[in-house]
Amino acid sequence: MAPITGKVICAGLGPGDPELMSLKSARLIGAADHVAYFRKAGRAGQARRIVEGMLKPGATEYPMEYPVTTELPFDSPEYTQALAQFYDDWADRLAALAAVQDVVVLCEGDPFFYGSFMHLHSRLQGRVPVEVIPGITGMTGCWNATDTPITWGDDVLTVLMGTLPEEDLVRHMVNSDALVVMKTGRNLPRVRRALERAGRLESAWLVERGTMPGQRVARLVEVDPHDVPYFAIVLVHGHGRRPEMAE
Amino acid sequence: MAPITGKVICAGLGPGDPELMSLKSARLIGAADHVAYFRKAGRAGQARRIVEGMLKPGATEYPMEYPVTTELPFDSPEYTQALAQFYDDWADRLAALAAVQDVVVLCEGDPFFYGSFMHLHSRLQGRVPVEVIPGITGMTGCWNATDTPITWGDDVLTVLMGTLPEEDLVRHMVNSDALVVMKTGRNLPRVRRALERAGRLESAWLVERGTMPGQRVARLVEVDPHDVPYFAIVLVHGHGRRPEMAE
Repeated sequence: MAPITGKVICAGLGPGDPELMSLKSARLIGAADHVAYFRKAGRAGQARRIVEGMLKPGATEYPMEYPVTTELPFDSPEYTQALAQFYDDWADRLAALAAVQDVVVLCEGDPFFYGSFMHLHSRLQGRVPVEVIPGITGMTGCWNATDTPITWGDDVLTVLMGTLPEEDLVRHMVNSDALVVMKTGRNLPRVRRALERAGRLESAWLVERGTMPGQRVARLVEVDPHDVPYFAIVLVHGHGRRPEMAE
Repeated sequence: MAPITGKVICAGLGPGDPELMSLKSARLIGAADHVAYFRKAGRAGQARRIVEGMLKPGATEYPMEYPVTTELPFDSPEYTQALAQFYDDWADRLAALAAVQDVVVLCEGDPFFYGSFMHLHSRLQGRVPVEVIPGITGMTGCWNATDTPITWGDDVLTVLMGTLPEEDLVRHMVNSDALVVMKTGRNLPRVRRALERAGRLESAWLVERGTMPGQRVARLVEVDPHDVPYFAIVLVHGHGRRPEMAE
């Protein structure tokens, strides 16, 4: 067998504004001959959009299109199986490419924070070298969009998925100072009810498309409950100890 | 009064490796005529060290040295008062500089995530324009150093300060999937006891100087309990739902 001469580099892209990418990710993306990224079939893809104008001329692109869900319920065993096969196939293709030359996989936010890349990362272990470049998480971009510190002093911060059962959401929302709720979208009505039950609704913010064109920052109580926002995160800021202002 | 022609720009520096700074922070830091940063008296300062070699020749530097604590207990009202006076004074100086020209304040990690800059941010409101550039948080750098995803699927992540009472630490550690504990240092024995009581000690990692020279990644059970690590974070990875591997 020929020696392995490349590696798979997963480049964290940050929250959406291309200028919020790290120097290291930008450098590796600009030098890559092979660039892969996840997207939904028929879409340009958010990751690809972030690097527009940054790729080396002549770089080969590998859009990794998620299996379509129109025929199968998203949470069915059949879809889970199709998704596993999709990751298996792409792990094989990326490993074959990296055996010869570096391949860069684009990943929104930070790859190790609820990222899809982890499904390739686990499948590539022991086959080819894998390097992961951190990125600014989407939630960090969103709390910066509110222009207010998310945490102070001894604040406890809890990150929750909007897919959790309402009782779990309420319990965590009562026990934490600062809150981040991701995967909102169609779960927004449940997230909103949970915040109300926890007494946190009045201080909650919705940030949609944080750091991207079309960014919206709104108090959650003022958001139309039938709205299904895109790339949206719900935030409640902490209220930690502050040093007193001198007289 | 002359019109205000500058602003205060707080540039997030990321977790420590200069290459993990954002393109935007790097660009603004390299163009700045005035650069301010926090440090302990008599130290070079971690923020200043990260930008070594990046400043414009002839840039004026403003080390903002925290009041010394040798005479006063850290948690005494007198020290709190000295600290408030320190922030007041620097807010005045930065506002005076920014009235004429941009001044960049360096901030490790992300400025709005437990950052010292917030004490200036609140004092500068309504006086001069303030712009904050997000950064990769120190915790993101640390979980990347373990080369393992911190969160998967529907995992709940809780961020705790090691300064919290042991009972609070235990309660949160029992209720969360993934954990990040910051401000460890001298609090490490308490953090360790809390993890043990919560049944999470065996899966806890200590990351010291994440992404920086001298980085150390160790299982917490293997760390000398009398060790007081620098820039150290304790992590417990989540164990979220994974799609099954295809047969």
